[in-house]
Amino acid sequence: MAARNRGYFEARNILALNLVSSPGSGKTTLLERTLRDLGEEMDFYVIEGDQQTTNDAERIAALQVPVRQINTGKGCHLESDMIYEAVRQLDIANDGVLMIENVGNLVCPSMFNLGEQARVVIISVTEGEDKPIKYPDMFHTSQICLINKTDLLPYLECDLERLKNYALQVNPDLKFFEVSALKGEGMEQWYNWLRSQRNP
Amino acid sequence: MAARNRGYFEARNILALNLVSSPGSGKTTLLERTLRDLGEEMDFYVIEGDQQTTNDAERIAALQVPVRQINTGKGCHLESDMIYEAVRQLDIANDGVLMIENVGNLVCPSMFNLGEQARVVIISVTEGEDKPIKYPDMFHTSQICLINKTDLLPYLECDLERLKNYALQVNPDLKFFEVSALKGEGMEQWYNWLRSQRNP
Repeated sequence: MAARNRGYFEARNILALNLVSSPGSGKTTLLERTLRDLGEEMDFYVIEGDQQTTNDAERIAALQVPVRQINTGKGCHLESDMIYEAVRQLDIANDGVLMIENVGNLVCPSMFNLGEQARVVIISVTEGEDKPIKYPDMFHTSQICLINKTDLLPYLECDLERLKNYALQVNPDLKFFEVSALKGEGMEQWYNWLRSQRNP
Repeated sequence: MAARNRGYFEARNILALNLVSSPGSGKTTLLERTLRDLGEEMDFYVIEGDQQTTNDAERIAALQVPVRQINTGKGCHLESDMIYEAVRQLDIANDGVLMIENVGNLVCPSMFNLGEQARVVIISVTEGEDKPIKYPDMFHTSQICLINKTDLLPYLECDLERLKNYALQVNPDLKFFEVSALKGEGMEQWYNWLRSQRNP
C-alpha cells in the first residue's frame, strides 16, 4: 500500500513528507509556521496522526489548510492504508505538498513506510544528545533532521555538535537544519530545502 | 509472567516501579539524583531499557548501584519476561527497591504490565500541556506523574495547571510531583512518596 501511495503521489507530482519525532518536540508548531510562511508559494495539505484528540487538526484548519486527523487509538504509528484513505478524502491537487505528522513516537513509526518522498525527524534540544544512538532506526531511516527549540540552548546543557555526530554515526547522509519553530530562527534553510524538493 | 514477577517482588518485599515517558524527559537524570540522595536509606537496583546502547546502565553503574541493561533492538517497550530474567540476574535482596526505566515511548509501554507496584509517568514541561489527552493510555495506567524540568518554566509557554487538568481528565487519581531533577527542586516530595511506599 505504501507503493500504491507512492504511485499516486508521483502521478500528481505531490511532495509527501513524513514528519516523525518524540511527543512534544514541536512538530505541530513547526508545521504551523511553515504553512503560514510558505502558504502563498505552496499548496499544502496535512494529515495529523495522534492516539486521541483533534487538537492538531484544529490548529492546522485554523490556517485554512485542508487537513485530516487520524486517531490511532491504541496504535502507536500511522500505516500506509490510513494514509491511502486520508489522501483520497483530501483530493490533493497536482503539485500539492502533503505534510504527514506522525504519532509522537521515536520508535515504531520508523518501521512503517507511508509512501513518502522523504522522512523528516524532528528532535528538540531539550531531549539530550544521545537520542540518535539510543533510537537509531528513526535516524537511520530519515533523510532530514530538524533540530528544534534552539531558542532554549542558553538554558540547557546540550552540545549540538555531539548530537549531530551521534546522528551521523547511524546515518552519515543525514542533513540537518537547526531551527526554533517558535521564534523563527533558522527556518529559511528548511524552506529552501522544501523549495528545492518542489523544483528539482 | 507479570503476575509471576509480582509474586516474586511480594515474596521479597521488593518495591518495583516502572518509569515511563517520552524520550528525553529526563528519566535517567531523575534516577541518578534519586539514587544519590536516597542511597543510604534504600537498597536500589535498576533495570535500564533502551533500543540500543548501554549509556544509561553505565551512568547508573557509576553510582555503585547494581544494574542490568536490556536492549530491545527493534522493540518499543520492555516486557515482563525480560524483567523476569533481569530480576534473577540482579538477585535483589529482601526489602530492595527496583527501578525499571522503560524505553522512551509514551505509547506502547502503557500496554505492558511488568509486575510493578506502581507506574510512574515522567513528562517534561518542554513537551507541551496536551500530551496527557493525546496519549491518554499512559496517563490512565499510571499512579504517579512526575512533571520534570521545572527549572525551564521561565523560558517556556507552559501552563502547569492546564497540563495537570488534562492529566486528571484521563486519570482523576493521578498524583503529581513537580521537580527539576537537574537542579533538585521539588525532589523531597517525591522522596517522601518513595519512603511512604517502603513503610506503608
